Amino acid sequence: MKAAIVGGGVIGGGWAARFLLNGWDVSVFDPDPEAQRRIGEVIANARRSLPALYDRALPDEGRLTFHADLAEAVRGAGWVQESTPERLELKHDVLASLSSLAPEKAVIGSSTSGFKPSDLNAGGARAIVAHPFNPVYLLPLVELVGAREETERAAGILRSLGMFPLIVRKEIDAHIADRLLEAVWRESLWLVRDGIATTEEIDEAIRMGFGLRWAQMGLFETYRIAGGEAGMKHFLSQFGPALKWPWTKLTNVPEFDDALVELVAGQSDAQSGQLSVRVLERLRDDNLVGMLRALKKSGSGAGGVLNRHEALLRRPETDGLPVTADRQIPQGWTDYNGHMNEACYLEASAAASDRFMEMIGADADYIAGGKSYFTVENHLRYLKELHAGERLTITTQVLKAEGRKMHLFHFLKGGDGSLAATAETLLFHVDLTTRRSCPPAPAIAARLTALAEAHAALPVPEGAGRHVGQRG
Amino acid sequence: MKAAIVGGGVIGGGWAARFLLNGWDVSVFDPDPEAQRRIGEVIANARRSLPALYDRALPDEGRLTFHADLAEAVRGAGWVQESTPERLELKHDVLASLSSLAPEKAVIGSSTSGFKPSDLNAGGARAIVAHPFNPVYLLPLVELVGAREETERAAGILRSLGMFPLIVRKEIDAHIADRLLEAVWRESLWLVRDGIATTEEIDEAIRMGFGLRWAQMGLFETYRIAGGEAGMKHFLSQFGPALKWPWTKLTNVPEFDDALVELVAGQSDAQSGQLSVRVLERLRDDNLVGMLRALKKSGSGAGGVLNRHEALLRRPETDGLPVTADRQIPQGWTDYNGHMNEACYLEASAAASDRFMEMIGADADYIAGGKSYFTVENHLRYLKELHAGERLTITTQVLKAEGRKMHLFHFLKGGDGSLAATAETLLFHVDLTTRRSCPPAPAIAARLTALAEAHAALPVPEGAGRHVGQRG
Repeated sequence: MKAAIVGGGVIGGGWAARFLLNGWDVSVFDPDPEAQRRIGEVIANARRSLPALYDRALPDEGRLTFHADLAEAVRGAGWVQESTPERLELKHDVLASLSSLAPEKAVIGSSTSGFKPSDLNAGGARAIVAHPFNPVYLLPLVELVGAREETERAAGILRSLGMFPLIVRKEIDAHIADRLLEAVWRESLWLVRDGIATTEEIDEAIRMGFGLRWAQMGLFETYRIAGGEAGMKHFLSQFGPALKWPWTKLTNVPEFDDALVELVAGQSDAQSGQLSVRVLERLRDDNLVGMLRALKKSGSGAGGVLNRHEALLRRPETDGLPVTADRQIPQGWTDYNGHMNEACYLEASAAASDRFMEMIGADADYIAGGKSYFTVENHLRYLKELHAGERLTITTQVLKAEGRKMHLFHFLKGGDGSLAATAETLLFHVDLTTRRSCPPAPAIAARLTALAEAHAALPVPEGAGRHVGQRG
Repeated sequence: MKAAIVGGGVIGGGWAARFLLNGWDVSVFDPDPEAQRRIGEVIANARRSLPALYDRALPDEGRLTFHADLAEAVRGAGWVQESTPERLELKHDVLASLSSLAPEKAVIGSSTSGFKPSDLNAGGARAIVAHPFNPVYLLPLVELVGAREETERAAGILRSLGMFPLIVRKEIDAHIADRLLEAVWRESLWLVRDGIATTEEIDEAIRMGFGLRWAQMGLFETYRIAGGEAGMKHFLSQFGPALKWPWTKLTNVPEFDDALVELVAGQSDAQSGQLSVRVLERLRDDNLVGMLRALKKSGSGAGGVLNRHEALLRRPETDGLPVTADRQIPQGWTDYNGHMNEACYLEASAAASDRFMEMIGADADYIAGGKSYFTVENHLRYLKELHAGERLTITTQVLKAEGRKMHLFHFLKGGDGSLAATAETLLFHVDLTTRRSCPPAPAIAARLTALAEAHAALPVPEGAGRHVGQRG
């Protein structure tokens, strides 16, 4: 299978990457001498991120070629995608050429943000709108507008690339998503111009709040939940009047009559009516927790707020042994067996090892100084099922501390205080530059030795030194 | 510390949960007999989700009380939050009462979506706007509008609750976020009324595309990236003209002159200028991958698209031993040591065990029928560092299969094909109803035994039967 990409900017490059990484050969036509470099950079970004979405390998990459001749570029292509600048005369010419040069069966898609198929094809072309969203290699949405048979054929191909084709019922300037974006853009420019908010404040107003809702549910399903048990009609009766209020500078509004209420509420029932508001709430919350925990890793947006708050939360008191974890088990740690997944026991234990490192002074500053600990071996025993929402605490015993070696034993306890698992772990102190083991700084060694000596009086925990499947 | 919540709907309940789970005592005033039940349900939702955001425990919960007397409810409160229906006369009365009854030092916040402080306080109250977003216990944003000293004091308290206070520079109807929401709402109602799209199609247009961008970066930083190397001015020159085009029915637009371009581009430089577009792109992509992987767990929105696509991806060919994983290591699997985190080796190995189960017939249907395998013990050796973007393959050898027991050994190989880790795992076949071990179905047992017999001829892998810290 071969895709021809006409126009090699950020959008064309994204299309090239999406096809290429799904096993299609890709030929590019763009007279700009910079196109090859630009597309190469987009594909490099795609290679590090698109395959990371999946727990299986994508097909082997297709072959990427660049062509100075349009006819050659589109020869044998099953999909031809035009992503030239948003100028109608230019698109007329390009799409007309493509329509005559491309194989009869090829889909001819235009990435246009705003033009309708009837605009695009006024020069005799047979293109459909196939409007993607940046980054094209990660975001699934493609708006398809055009003849039904053509858009349905295109939809099948897009699905095979992991995309989400949305066939638009009637052609309209800017399709669907860009109409919403344009409305927000216009309102935002007013806010900036009038000195109400800066660009940064507007971004915060989005990503700290409704942006997180929209990423998983969109507008109407979110509002359905806000209507609570009384549903969408209740929400409409509450916020309908706002259409007459000066809540935006954009004031051309549809008549808020019974017909509109019936239409919106009826469509919302068809969309989400099979799920109760309680179920929707929990789905929303689980999604928010999952996305917010993902954002904690980069510290972006709401993830940064969480990291700052978490740093202020009090550490548990040492209770005989050092308490190295005290937390609640998130919903996302549960698997198909309805209990905490085996890997999450280790995720919690690894965080407990990090906390133990902090306690002996091997903290973020120490690591930034170029020294750290690497785990070389782990042994876990699963004694009791743990569940989402349950409190999980971990205490840690030092089994041995000798030169570069640190041998720890974590006791994982569930909400009822009983032992749910043990994790035995061996770490080596390393130099992060050479990636080889080396002795820890004297202050670290001293604190570790003091704990090891204090714990030497304790009995060796049951299960320590055990191999997998050992009897008794 | 005590917070008084006046009005116990979804928003009041969310405020109550946010304070309570951060260790504040909470008193509620709402004459509606349903309020206690409704607030209880919101708090139940909050208990399963808010603490799951953190890797540490939140403070002990405060005490929740309900009061029929307003004066009693607000006595000794440091924060009083009004969340009554959006009727100005009602808010005048309530806020005036609260201003006279509450302690002088208490913040008096109103959850109003649209009214300005000068509207709210026309009846003699001293309230500020503290406008949160549903669900209040998870979303960080609170828009603060009012006297600077009051809003700054309120901001400090909100930060201690893990929220993100956004102080609005000038009062305006609907503050900031709801102006953007109202613009989208109006445009969406047009689209529904004109038959361009259904409510569901509009939700898909959001959550499959720009919603995912906005959740982490907002509007302007996203567009800065879209401008590419040429930056925000390039983006503005490209999309400025659209302000004159019929891309929305909302047509009152600011003059797109040089002053507006300078203002927007200058603010965007101040906001994100320290990061190159390349760095921003990678941050955006890592966030998208993290959030999308989180959505795969529930199958919501774009997560569902990924699951459907993944199911179509070809499984690797068996290569001597069964190949139980073939995937790319995501960025989010990397830790502070700059390599794959120890727990992710087990996450990959656990998925390999799942795949092995599928191969012998213990697949999703079998599990739905009430039988499965539980892991009881794991041993991991870390032999080589693995990195984000690297290919990871796993092959699996059966060490033993006897009755309920399945003893497996996973070989984890990195991109260069060399052994990076081993994972030895012991699983028991279980009845999911009794949660006790039991023999597998005959077909499963037969397939497992056949593999075990074929593998019996192989040498016992190096490291099998090893305990942590064993010499040699």
